[in-house]
Amino acid sequence: MNERAPFPLYPHRHLLGIKDLSPSDIELLLDRADDAVAISRQSEKKTSTLRGRTQINLFYEASTRTQSSFELAGKRLGADVMNMSVASSSVKKGETLIDTAMTLNAMRPDILVIRHASAGAAALLAQKVGCSVVNAGDGAHEHPTQALLDALTIRRAKGKIARLTVAICGDIGHSRVARSNILLLNALGARVRVVAPSTLLPAGISAMGVEVFNTMKEGLHGADVVMMLRLQRERMQGAFVPSVREYFRYYGLDAEKLKAARDDALVMHPGPMNRGVEIASEIADGPQSVIQEQVEMGVAVRMAVMEALLDPRRNPEGVAG
Amino acid sequence: MNERAPFPLYPHRHLLGIKDLSPSDIELLLDRADDAVAISRQSEKKTSTLRGRTQINLFYEASTRTQSSFELAGKRLGADVMNMSVASSSVKKGETLIDTAMTLNAMRPDILVIRHASAGAAALLAQKVGCSVVNAGDGAHEHPTQALLDALTIRRAKGKIARLTVAICGDIGHSRVARSNILLLNALGARVRVVAPSTLLPAGISAMGVEVFNTMKEGLHGADVVMMLRLQRERMQGAFVPSVREYFRYYGLDAEKLKAARDDALVMHPGPMNRGVEIASEIADGPQSVIQEQVEMGVAVRMAVMEALLDPRRNPEGVAG
Amino acid sequence: MNERAPFPLYPHRHLLGIKDLSPSDIELLLDRADDAVAISRQSEKKTSTLRGRTQINLFYEASTRTQSSFELAGKRLGADVMNMSVASSSVKKGETLIDTAMTLNAMRPDILVIRHASAGAAALLAQKVGCSVVNAGDGAHEHPTQALLDALTIRRAKGKIARLTVAICGDIGHSRVARSNILLLNALGARVRVVAPSTLLPAGISAMGVEVFNTMKEGLHGADVVMMLRLQRERMQGAFVPSVREYFRYYGLDAEKLKAARDDALVMHPGPMNRGVEIASEIADGPQSVIQEQVEMGVAVRMAVMEALLDPRRNPEGVAG
Repeated sequence: MNERAPFPLYPHRHLLGIKDLSPSDIELLLDRADDAVAISRQSEKKTSTLRGRTQINLFYEASTRTQSSFELAGKRLGADVMNMSVASSSVKKGETLIDTAMTLNAMRPDILVIRHASAGAAALLAQKVGCSVVNAGDGAHEHPTQALLDALTIRRAKGKIARLTVAICGDIGHSRVARSNILLLNALGARVRVVAPSTLLPAGISAMGVEVFNTMKEGLHGADVVMMLRLQRERMQGAFVPSVREYFRYYGLDAEKLKAARDDALVMHPGPMNRGVEIASEIADGPQSVIQEQVEMGVAVRMAVMEALLDPRRNPEGVAG
Repeated sequence: MNERAPFPLYPHRHLLGIKDLSPSDIELLLDRADDAVAISRQSEKKTSTLRGRTQINLFYEASTRTQSSFELAGKRLGADVMNMSVASSSVKKGETLIDTAMTLNAMRPDILVIRHASAGAAALLAQKVGCSVVNAGDGAHEHPTQALLDALTIRRAKGKIARLTVAICGDIGHSRVARSNILLLNALGARVRVVAPSTLLPAGISAMGVEVFNTMKEGLHGADVVMMLRLQRERMQGAFVPSVREYFRYYGLDAEKLKAARDDALVMHPGPMNRGVEIASEIADGPQSVIQEQVEMGVAVRMAVMEALLDPRRNPEGVAG
Repeated sequence: MNERAPFPLYPHRHLLGIKDLSPSDIELLLDRADDAVAISRQSEKKTSTLRGRTQINLFYEASTRTQSSFELAGKRLGADVMNMSVASSSVKKGETLIDTAMTLNAMRPDILVIRHASAGAAALLAQKVGCSVVNAGDGAHEHPTQALLDALTIRRAKGKIARLTVAICGDIGHSRVARSNILLLNALGARVRVVAPSTLLPAGISAMGVEVFNTMKEGLHGADVVMMLRLQRERMQGAFVPSVREYFRYYGLDAEKLKAARDDALVMHPGPMNRGVEIASEIADGPQSVIQEQVEMGVAVRMAVMEALLDPRRNPEGVAG
């Protein structure tokens, strides 16, 4: 990567949320992620940038794609990666999050990637540990690397993000993905809409600088990007759990509803998908879908973030002439 | 390894089953596996053949030895290995096998090792993904690396496979191990027998080119190799579940039954063993047993297979002068 | 590390317990561990001492810190590390410990790290396998690397171990940590006390060369080191399970009880802590606590042990001029 470019994220030691990032941080990270895509497409997909560094993935919620993506990102940068499987750990013996984190911290990791069901868990750890912390999802708060990978996917397909119309659709209320995406897309000058039934909208959503729609037809009208969300029924209670059939009828993305968007609109989903619930299979696998590209960009973005946080040259005192 | 030898498996991109392999493929793989045995016996048991390559082990059925064997094989070839623990993954959120595989595929692995309870799962994935697929067991269909490691064990002990008499004994009906072994041993010219009660024989077994016996005494008579199978009671239902005591009496390998085979007959078992069910402890640990050698050969065979599939020189356009 | 220093543990091939070690073995291991601390404090915290070696962690009891510590120690020495998750392994299919170990052994590891609920499990394996075995805790018997890391923590803080007064407090009866510490501290000339209610003392404790106290006030009087133990209620039965509130009142370390010790006494705990049970939070996080240092020393001690067991130069025939 270009050694003379300014360092994204500096002087942040952690990546806790999109809200801490400047537009320049975001663009520089996406530039570096473009380079990282090329690395993963090589036969020998490995650098030695983080050789001898220790990365610990501490996941309190199971995740195929996010944990795997961070693991491969670290390994391709040459780091030693250790996964903490919380289900089989001392957490069962009643140890607190902080005690677990302090214990891991004492083993001198360079970076701690954390996913936790509580909003603010990553920020709490960042105050306690000596290493860099990357938030891989904290409750309904933020999931910054997801927003970055979505932005990279859009920028590569459309050449820009500014002035695009992006419709984020579905279970906004339970979604850290929606929240981080709204912050990032606004920071880069996109026009952001949210489309959902009012029961799935969080209080105060209109203060986030988005247009709110309650029907897909209106919300998708003329959109450049249609970003579907997973319906998180497991986080809902009682009367507010929608029926899957009704939900698909009104808010599931199918060919008919997609017609409202621009012909070249991108279809996105953070996964894992509920096919036939929030998205029809023919759309998920159709020509406008960039869902697989999102996964590929995920590894690249995480490589860029971890490299940016740990690169010794980012520290001005450490710059070699 | 010898750079001028022809490449086994070429032009196959996957290893889905023994039925796709020519006798020459098999012999060339066993030759390479012989070389890999030597690597694992060194103090520094590591090459850089697959440095920077990504191997993902996607196991839908738990397995100590097969998953460990593939993991060590990949690491000793220098690959980055990632295990997908399906029990703790998004599969619990209802994602399909194909969606999980496509997600992993988008992370640009070079090789996907899959074990699944459904016959044909590996072949299905191979049609969908861009990387090489190795079948590590699919339902009652095939388990090709097991058959290759068994063949390597026999060839090293007996110097050949052609014209040996091999008796495969026990729970043939539920066994992908039996199926792959029958295909391989027939391809290399061995005389294959199966020995089992008729309730544990699959329909159409006689069309597979084997002699069928219902008693151990007749089936083992003059055999060079006695290959026992694990009794998979967990896959049986109702009236057809044999009592362990009765099973051992009639089909468990003990000193008395083993006398029917040749004095220098090899005793094999793919593990994990039910001691006292399909095999007596004194035989499992006795002088004719090569059960530990089978495990050692497993790592070597998997090194040979993955190297053969990924070696850039196998592609004629990629051959260096 | 100093190539001319004598090798600790020689001619032992395994580390099964402190009882096998000479005072010189212990001191030499602590010297090497001091060097290893420096490695983990570097940015590139990696050596190539064990490059190409295979380490298998076989844990029959879940453990965040011990398994992680061994994993990072191995990776920082350059070894390939494989974790065997027993919960998801063939052990569920009924395979015995010995069969599992023999299977792993056939894969030609260089070192097997084992934790098991039965006393003597590590020694049993050591008789069967061809590789080095490190006991990571066997029942209520020994946990030698814990005692070594505790000793390293003390030696770095106090400059010595001989003639220090060390009070080991709490659930002595269920504690392999207590047992290994008593052996090590006695070997190096410390004065060892145990402090516990009589129901939590094992039979024959007085024959181990310790002074026995039943109250914290007497037991901690003038102590240089206060070593708290985890109350293992999960290992207790019926009438002997103490109430948490009563236990804390009489045996939990709080500011009042700690006053009995020397002003500069170290407070230690092997983790995971039950805050408010055996130790008050203000003490665990207070200025006398070295609990985080213990964790850091754990990685270093495990690096020293594995390097000492596997270094080719320790074998006199292998010494290079």
